[in-house]
Amino acid sequence: MRAIQLSAFGLDHLESIDLPTPRPGPKEVLVRMEAASLNFRDRMLVDGQLYRGVRLPIVPVSDGAGTVQEVGEAVTRFKPGDRVTTFYKSRWIAGAMRPEWEGAEIGGPEPGVMRELACFDEYSLARAPARFSAVQAATLPIAALTAWQALEMARVTSGQTVLLLGTGGVSLFALQFARLRGARAIVLSSSDDKLERATALGANVGINYAKHPQWGALVREASGGAGVDLVVETIGAATLAQSLEAVRMHGVVAVLGWLGGSEATLPLTPMVLKRVRLQGLSVASLEAHERMVAAIEAGGLEPVIDHVYGFGQLREAFEQLGAGRHFGKLAIDFTR
Amino acid sequence: MRAIQLSAFGLDHLESIDLPTPRPGPKEVLVRMEAASLNFRDRMLVDGQLYRGVRLPIVPVSDGAGTVQEVGEAVTRFKPGDRVTTFYKSRWIAGAMRPEWEGAEIGGPEPGVMRELACFDEYSLARAPARFSAVQAATLPIAALTAWQALEMARVTSGQTVLLLGTGGVSLFALQFARLRGARAIVLSSSDDKLERATALGANVGINYAKHPQWGALVREASGGAGVDLVVETIGAATLAQSLEAVRMHGVVAVLGWLGGSEATLPLTPMVLKRVRLQGLSVASLEAHERMVAAIEAGGLEPVIDHVYGFGQLREAFEQLGAGRHFGKLAIDFTR
Amino acid sequence: MRAIQLSAFGLDHLESIDLPTPRPGPKEVLVRMEAASLNFRDRMLVDGQLYRGVRLPIVPVSDGAGTVQEVGEAVTRFKPGDRVTTFYKSRWIAGAMRPEWEGAEIGGPEPGVMRELACFDEYSLARAPARFSAVQAATLPIAALTAWQALEMARVTSGQTVLLLGTGGVSLFALQFARLRGARAIVLSSSDDKLERATALGANVGINYAKHPQWGALVREASGGAGVDLVVETIGAATLAQSLEAVRMHGVVAVLGWLGGSEATLPLTPMVLKRVRLQGLSVASLEAHERMVAAIEAGGLEPVIDHVYGFGQLREAFEQLGAGRHFGKLAIDFTR
Amino acid sequence: MRAIQLSAFGLDHLESIDLPTPRPGPKEVLVRMEAASLNFRDRMLVDGQLYRGVRLPIVPVSDGAGTVQEVGEAVTRFKPGDRVTTFYKSRWIAGAMRPEWEGAEIGGPEPGVMRELACFDEYSLARAPARFSAVQAATLPIAALTAWQALEMARVTSGQTVLLLGTGGVSLFALQFARLRGARAIVLSSSDDKLERATALGANVGINYAKHPQWGALVREASGGAGVDLVVETIGAATLAQSLEAVRMHGVVAVLGWLGGSEATLPLTPMVLKRVRLQGLSVASLEAHERMVAAIEAGGLEPVIDHVYGFGQLREAFEQLGAGRHFGKLAIDFTR
Repeated sequence: MRAIQLSAFGLDHLESIDLPTPRPGPKEVLVRMEAASLNFRDRMLVDGQLYRGVRLPIVPVSDGAGTVQEVGEAVTRFKPGDRVTTFYKSRWIAGAMRPEWEGAEIGGPEPGVMRELACFDEYSLARAPARFSAVQAATLPIAALTAWQALEMARVTSGQTVLLLGTGGVSLFALQFARLRGARAIVLSSSDDKLERATALGANVGINYAKHPQWGALVREASGGAGVDLVVETIGAATLAQSLEAVRMHGVVAVLGWLGGSEATLPLTPMVLKRVRLQGLSVASLEAHERMVAAIEAGGLEPVIDHVYGFGQLREAFEQLGAGRHFGKLAIDFTR
Repeated sequence: MRAIQLSAFGLDHLESIDLPTPRPGPKEVLVRMEAASLNFRDRMLVDGQLYRGVRLPIVPVSDGAGTVQEVGEAVTRFKPGDRVTTFYKSRWIAGAMRPEWEGAEIGGPEPGVMRELACFDEYSLARAPARFSAVQAATLPIAALTAWQALEMARVTSGQTVLLLGTGGVSLFALQFARLRGARAIVLSSSDDKLERATALGANVGINYAKHPQWGALVREASGGAGVDLVVETIGAATLAQSLEAVRMHGVVAVLGWLGGSEATLPLTPMVLKRVRLQGLSVASLEAHERMVAAIEAGGLEPVIDHVYGFGQLREAFEQLGAGRHFGKLAIDFTR
Repeated sequence: MRAIQLSAFGLDHLESIDLPTPRPGPKEVLVRMEAASLNFRDRMLVDGQLYRGVRLPIVPVSDGAGTVQEVGEAVTRFKPGDRVTTFYKSRWIAGAMRPEWEGAEIGGPEPGVMRELACFDEYSLARAPARFSAVQAATLPIAALTAWQALEMARVTSGQTVLLLGTGGVSLFALQFARLRGARAIVLSSSDDKLERATALGANVGINYAKHPQWGALVREASGGAGVDLVVETIGAATLAQSLEAVRMHGVVAVLGWLGGSEATLPLTPMVLKRVRLQGLSVASLEAHERMVAAIEAGGLEPVIDHVYGFGQLREAFEQLGAGRHFGKLAIDFTR
Repeated sequence: MRAIQLSAFGLDHLESIDLPTPRPGPKEVLVRMEAASLNFRDRMLVDGQLYRGVRLPIVPVSDGAGTVQEVGEAVTRFKPGDRVTTFYKSRWIAGAMRPEWEGAEIGGPEPGVMRELACFDEYSLARAPARFSAVQAATLPIAALTAWQALEMARVTSGQTVLLLGTGGVSLFALQFARLRGARAIVLSSSDDKLERATALGANVGINYAKHPQWGALVREASGGAGVDLVVETIGAATLAQSLEAVRMHGVVAVLGWLGGSEATLPLTPMVLKRVRLQGLSVASLEAHERMVAAIEAGGLEPVIDHVYGFGQLREAFEQLGAGRHFGKLAIDFTR
């Protein structure tokens, strides 16, 4: 069976290989993989810059979707023909992350999804939303769940306002989930064109941060004066001070990543006097993922996919990811 | 100034009278009342069956709306011309109800809204939603806030399902708030016609409980098999057992009233094994009310009003309330 | 290896048998069982009155403790020599109970602990508290965890007051946990002698409910007038109305069982006007169990054990359980 | 009546004056002030460095205690002879801080407590703990409430571990509240002597940070390896990175001040991967204060007071506060 493996760090070392067909254990499910989507984490792995050690060679990429081919004798959650996505934190069923589950991540240290057939524990898979294509479903595991969890944690609901920094995969999912929950969304981008596209997706306000580097006050004004209830902080170092400016008294800043550098300057006075909650967050449990799928199905959300590549175009997809000009997700269709 | 007062218990003792014009104290606001809406509580007061003692004569009716005429010197929340509603639990600003605030209720023991001019503490009033007429705004204080609080308490959001028992004021607001929050709504009624109207308002499923007295299992099925996340229990005695049948594992039953009698039979086995939360609830604080107004303004909700009566038709309105055939709220327009 | 099995319903059908030595699977742990403790559920099983179907013959009793003998190759949580307890809801690791885990209960439908050697999934076991004997540890899985979860759910802490109905296993653990958390405890019993013993364990107030059938008002008074923050409702049918009388505004009644009958009369007026939370609850997840063990170790709690029986005295132990005169737990020491 | 006022910024401008006796309004309470305690905020006010504007001259100092002399006609919460403390955020009764309450702070912008007689709204006062002297009671409003709220917010309870940075007023209250709630406490100090005194107060572990600048790992080890549940961050700039090292996965860092400078460097990788909650916090509502008083009374906590000064020694007290060598609170006894 066809697969792609990383034999050494660097984009040059993504190789097409042939692997033996796997057989499911008693609690395992054999899945015919049909699609994948990319996250920055996948690129960090390829570049040898992941925060977690992995052993080479490895099949890369964390997020995938496909169809159940066969199930082990003790499996109760799935049957052949079921359409599924992988679940990145493959052992985190519910509750708090446990130390012994911390390294169990599909796409490194555990093998990734760039292979035609793969076996997973039945709790390392989730049902795909009913109307979704495999390519659409493959966009969910990391980006959508991270966005969903930020809104869940802050209990975003009707009457509230959420600020999204940029138009990457997590931000656009957060925008869409905010709208599903009845909340208003304010989006920042350095591109007026992207702001227009975000508005078409439901954003209530778009602000060009390149034109307004002190966007915090503008956001507060656009939220009615008090500040936003939640900032989905996907950048960090360059934006945290303005995010604290934009958020309301008792508001929440969900810190989801460090695209802008691994250290941020935190102004303590507004932290304390506005009683802000800065909540670090990295994906969530399978239980949260299932609630998200229910919301997606009920609300009719469709993932925003910038471009779909073929199985053999993984390198091009990674290059595009690195360029950072995409709007939404980059996906791989295994049938191309 | 014109007012209506209850001089003795009974519908026959609602009298039109003339009262002196009140003057606002330093923290008070003088409001020209323009509309009212009725709740069962108002009828209980008139019938002498309220759970709380009142002294006669009293100006009846708890919920009203109007326009600020004048403000006391220490008032900061309002200015003349502002459009406001009364706030029923007139001292409950936020947090837990305090014993010393418990009896502070507009419409008995405190004077009600059936008068052309009335003074209120500035924290006994709330801003009316921007686009609302006075009649629309007057429907909010008790019914809408009770419904809102049930959904807030249960943290209802996208992907969840809510069950409403009947099509009275609280149930229809709960239906509308559930939809604003992205949740699905199942409505029960004994009238197919009312079920159709509820569907037009956004209900996803309607069930005629007269045809299906064992509706609990039907509701569970309609929710996808697991049961609903929240039952808005406005009836009680006659319905609680089926509500426990309808709710999912770890679900919530918000107990808001006792229209069906003051004692219910509670089946303990499903309570324990399904880990159900039965939450008694009676309106909420001004802080919750303000969040509700933000949600109403953002979501464009319009109250469902069955019939609007004139100031002189209070008795007819109370008779219609007692008949229980209305769909939504019964309101009084002071300009008629 | 020695075991006890139930071949037909009834105390007469508890038989001593010999079973083959089990071998652990890859994720399993082989435990030498050293002690057990009894819960009413065990007696319901023997009497054929359990709410859940089981297949006979079965090894009875849910709660046990012992020492790890051997571990499967994939086990990471335990090693030989570790001292453990069983975990009754054997698949409930964290979060919400899932339908597919609901029937996975040690002591029926799954085999119980009355056997010298038993294999369990590594997540169906918990570490025993460091200083505990096997007999002490065996008292924890159902009774202590249920009590702990009631206090966790209600977030009982210093400055609050908890009411315990009776002096059975759950009530006494709830008393001890309340004291560990800095809360006051009021205990009800029909025996002045038991009230004295409860006071020696830390209860702040004891009330003889046989002498004071309207104990609700007395409890409220003993709590300072406002009512208790939490009632640990282990009885139900006979007590719920007084429990609602005893609890404070916004208070919690944890409904843990139905010893007094499967249906209770619920007075709706205090439910609604006091905004009471009635929370059904049945044990909890392994994650909660682990937090409880940490609290037990930090606080130095010792389980209250009424009587310890030998392995061959299971029938006598069950008879004593049925008589209901015990104070605390009934345990089985496998070394006797 | 005797008072002290600040006529211009600087310690040199604290003057003894004579003020007319105030008369309580209808909802006000006249209090004979008997004691005060100092917070850094008071010193910032005197130094002209407060984050909030004030008009001079002003009676300084936020926290005081005394005895009710007389009450206005509409007062229901207090009667003459009641022993009370001031409540710093004088309008924050419950729920979220509101913009219109933000500047209502006793001790600037509102007049402070350094006067023999003072009138306060009945909701700007709290009942003093029963056994407390006025000097003890005066230590509570800012320091104790801030510490209490940090533990409440993080729901600290039995089985958990809390880290305190230093031995100032807030840290020592947090240590004592942690112990009341059944939690373990680890204390940092640069003085072995202070660590010994903290241990005598109940600290389970003391670490000298001067000897161990990389104390994060030591704290984690002392908590059993996983890290502490809560860090009470009273310093900020110099300590935040080590605090993030010390806290467990899903743990909480309560950010209460900026003694070490107004900007901290925040390492984003541990924030995100450990899913840390950084919660800014500044005192709390009257409702929280009342829960704290209940806990103090139930648990028998006694404030740690480093030194008590006379009414005329305010300047010396401020100098000592600035020196930062105190252990616990600095108080003023108006009878000296």
